[in-house]
Amino acid sequence: MKAALLISDGFEEAETVIIYDVLKRLGIGVDIISCSGLIMTNAYFSLSINADKRIEDIMEFVYDAVIIPGGPKSTISLSSNQKVISFIKRHEALEKWLCALCSAPARVLGMNQLLKGRQYTCSGNLWKGCTDGIYTGEDIVVDGNLITGRGLGVSFEFAFRIANMMTGRPDEVVAQEEHIYFRPEKTD
Amino acid sequence: MKAALLISDGFEEAETVIIYDVLKRLGIGVDIISCSGLIMTNAYFSLSINADKRIEDIMEFVYDAVIIPGGPKSTISLSSNQKVISFIKRHEALEKWLCALCSAPARVLGMNQLLKGRQYTCSGNLWKGCTDGIYTGEDIVVDGNLITGRGLGVSFEFAFRIANMMTGRPDEVVAQEEHIYFRPEKTD
Repeated sequence: MKAALLISDGFEEAETVIIYDVLKRLGIGVDIISCSGLIMTNAYFSLSINADKRIEDIMEFVYDAVIIPGGPKSTISLSSNQKVISFIKRHEALEKWLCALCSAPARVLGMNQLLKGRQYTCSGNLWKGCTDGIYTGEDIVVDGNLITGRGLGVSFEFAFRIANMMTGRPDEVVAQEEHIYFRPEKTD
Repeated sequence: MKAALLISDGFEEAETVIIYDVLKRLGIGVDIISCSGLIMTNAYFSLSINADKRIEDIMEFVYDAVIIPGGPKSTISLSSNQKVISFIKRHEALEKWLCALCSAPARVLGMNQLLKGRQYTCSGNLWKGCTDGIYTGEDIVVDGNLITGRGLGVSFEFAFRIANMMTGRPDEVVAQEEHIYFRPEKTD
């Protein structure tokens, strides 16, 4: 199994790296895909991460999941990048997992009519600009092959949910949550 | 205010980037310091992050906090790196914040007698190898200028606690927690 993490300069670095790390822990391959033209990227708080590939290099590849983290500058850029939208549409047609966090559900998917009437969540008031999809305001929403999350503070929940859906192994997901001392519902 | 994040190849990428991101959100400067000799680093799951500086370049600098994330290979390397231990001891003598997460409290501080009888926490059973410090097993422990955390799943709690102690502005910390939809004690 393999996931493509789509980022453009200005991406939210901690959202991106939490998703990357959690999926790796569940044995899922992850390619970080730069959609800014260069392998060396520059995040929201200027962290410099070297991507695995560029979007130009993977236009024929098929992944089991396409995942889009937030970061305002990144999601605005991704939403108008025709290579990115073509890549997402091809995976959507193949019924692969389509996952978006923070500003990405509204900006990248909603603005391109890719929510297709499905339930979703996103950050802030961005849902107000969307004519597509049904906004619920929950932390995490799964509707068919679409998985959306609200923002940075629920990135672990978002990543573990993706891993759960991709692997179909909730026991392994819970074991990993416990291994890293993550408790989705804290009681102590 | 400025913090130094000390990493060596094999560092836990999500722990590192969550701390970096949260401190930046609270207006704290962060230098990611490579202690592997090169600016381009290679994390636990092979993520490649470009550090800001190398430990060799900052031996005369003074930071308000020294922070050490986990990752077994990184903390084993840091614990035997005399530049790193000298850097930490200098900041400890200046009573700066000393913060360690996951395997770092036991491996980097404990193995170098830098816990100095203070209460701390760490991952797994590593505390059993420490003759220094008082292990509590809590998620986050603050004892004087020492702040320790248990592992990846409590990285947000660890980072927000550091920000709280450094800034002395709990109101701003809570506002940022809410802004990113992070709830330390989940009730819904």
